[in-house]
Amino acid sequence: MGSLETERTTVGWAARDPSGILSPYNYTLRNTGPQDVHIKVLYCGICHTDIHQIRNDLGMSNYPMVPGHEVVGEVTEVGSEVGNFAVGDVVGIGVLVGCCRNCRPCNLDIEQYCNKKIWSYNDVYTDGKPTQGGFAQSMVVDQKFVVKIPDGLAPEQAAPLLCAGVTVYSPLTHFGLKQSGLRGGILGLGGVGHMGVKIAKAMGHHVTVISSSDKKREEALEHLGADEYLVSSDATRMQEAADSLDYIIDTVPVFHPLEPYLSLLKLDGKLILMGVINTPLQFVTPMVMLGRKTITGSFIGSMKETKEMLEFCKEKGLTSMIEVIKMDYINTAFERLAKNDVRYRFVVDVAGSKLDQ
Amino acid sequence: MGSLETERTTVGWAARDPSGILSPYNYTLRNTGPQDVHIKVLYCGICHTDIHQIRNDLGMSNYPMVPGHEVVGEVTEVGSEVGNFAVGDVVGIGVLVGCCRNCRPCNLDIEQYCNKKIWSYNDVYTDGKPTQGGFAQSMVVDQKFVVKIPDGLAPEQAAPLLCAGVTVYSPLTHFGLKQSGLRGGILGLGGVGHMGVKIAKAMGHHVTVISSSDKKREEALEHLGADEYLVSSDATRMQEAADSLDYIIDTVPVFHPLEPYLSLLKLDGKLILMGVINTPLQFVTPMVMLGRKTITGSFIGSMKETKEMLEFCKEKGLTSMIEVIKMDYINTAFERLAKNDVRYRFVVDVAGSKLDQ
Repeated sequence: MGSLETERTTVGWAARDPSGILSPYNYTLRNTGPQDVHIKVLYCGICHTDIHQIRNDLGMSNYPMVPGHEVVGEVTEVGSEVGNFAVGDVVGIGVLVGCCRNCRPCNLDIEQYCNKKIWSYNDVYTDGKPTQGGFAQSMVVDQKFVVKIPDGLAPEQAAPLLCAGVTVYSPLTHFGLKQSGLRGGILGLGGVGHMGVKIAKAMGHHVTVISSSDKKREEALEHLGADEYLVSSDATRMQEAADSLDYIIDTVPVFHPLEPYLSLLKLDGKLILMGVINTPLQFVTPMVMLGRKTITGSFIGSMKETKEMLEFCKEKGLTSMIEVIKMDYINTAFERLAKNDVRYRFVVDVAGSKLDQ
Repeated sequence: MGSLETERTTVGWAARDPSGILSPYNYTLRNTGPQDVHIKVLYCGICHTDIHQIRNDLGMSNYPMVPGHEVVGEVTEVGSEVGNFAVGDVVGIGVLVGCCRNCRPCNLDIEQYCNKKIWSYNDVYTDGKPTQGGFAQSMVVDQKFVVKIPDGLAPEQAAPLLCAGVTVYSPLTHFGLKQSGLRGGILGLGGVGHMGVKIAKAMGHHVTVISSSDKKREEALEHLGADEYLVSSDATRMQEAADSLDYIIDTVPVFHPLEPYLSLLKLDGKLILMGVINTPLQFVTPMVMLGRKTITGSFIGSMKETKEMLEFCKEKGLTSMIEVIKMDYINTAFERLAKNDVRYRFVVDVAGSKLDQ
């Protein structure tokens, strides 16, 4: 690392086709422009979205594709106009690396809703080249999309905060659900759901984990610190819990009925959807109208919220629950994640892995 | 009118069975208690809900049933503890006549969400007797559920405000959509929809009426004062209007797709459902998540909001568009309303009708 010349090539692990199998791939990075930060990747979390992308589930994948958007790295070079970062800083990169900077969302500092946002990978950057993600030796990223990892947060712990963490933090703050004393529900206990329990608890909420089976009861109550555990097929307990929650964070990524969960909400309660589901979800209007309930959702969070969330996590001593792996295990990790067989996030020790096999 | 003795019987027009045909019916009213107001009915609007009730569409109808919950009358007697009303006052009664006064919604002055609310008709009052509505000579109502009609509002004009009017006014104020300059959509141009256009215009909004056909274009633009008219089957115009509205008031009372309308909403836009629809409505989650959009709904409004709304209408010179009829036309009016053949609300001139035929 050091000069521009040697940094123009890097190695990552890329999917080559919809089989989604990752293998080493050499490619070039752009020169570090005035606004750019050059980063040596330390850790990168595996998000469920990565599976959809590498397998072309959304029909929009371009190959070779280096996935990864929960990136923690070390700054190795900064552009001439970069003021907030210095070589050696530990920083994070999330889901986005670009936006138009002119539209209403950009002007409101919620650039995640910009129609011209640029994704960290499987997108095209302003220079016309494909963007490539964090399962790689290095990245070059515009400083607007880089965030400092506060001292005291372990880098591998911070990785899942950059997507899963802010995905939960953003709607709770935006929808006025940050104050302590609220009663929240977390539906689904995967990567986002486990962050939901931890962040909601750190906000001082009473947290109920809602699941389709009894399997995760001990996990939820004893390891994650949830206050209650509700099995959605238990009609008696569901009935008892009716009208009791201020919000539900619904992380289930497949079709499911909404009415059992709408019933759990109090007057003015909010059902916040986090799962990308292209099968239509259903509800009857009286369920919503008679309690002025809200069905809504949100998409990751802004860079501003990401900074705020990292400070919040540091202050509260909040950590994610992760399984750290090496890069040569990543294809197995994807298979396990597809079966929800992970507690709760895989994080790849990229710097500690042999990438160029 | 005068003494308690002569007020204990009254005559209304009641449905006797699910045919929903109304005919004269004699019944007793309770004595005017300390908190009660005795009212001679002047006018009563016909709401679409009345049809569901008289025809037992919801399976919860009890007969004989005197419908009517958009009531304007004159105070003829007040109880000993009634301070805000005097004989001769012109007052309104809406959808509710009772609530528990102890629960969270009651304490928040949004008694319309009280689980023990008592409906103006087809319900049971605290004395164990059936409640009967406004298509009647007189009513006795607790003062909490009586509102003064401000001077300057014609009583027949005020009637539809008490249900249709506040049904629109309440969510616009509750969801922070009252300030001028917003862009609103009104979906469906019936009794509630026409009030939606008028109230939104009076708030200073740019109003688009959205309809399934071109039939009401002139009506919407020239008579109701809407700014734009959009036919939902016109794909080109719908596409052009994408991402342009702060809210849509959806008054359609039957199944319809939501996605065309979610598309019209801006970032953070709100789809506010007003129609009781027991066939499930559908949406896919990315439509909601990627613009942080909200699907919600609300139920009439509180007495506090009703007062506020009447003052607002007076101040803005806002009137409803009505067709005034006599009671002997009411069965025909119900038939016409079921076919949406009315511009836009029937109001029965109760005091000017011969009730006891």
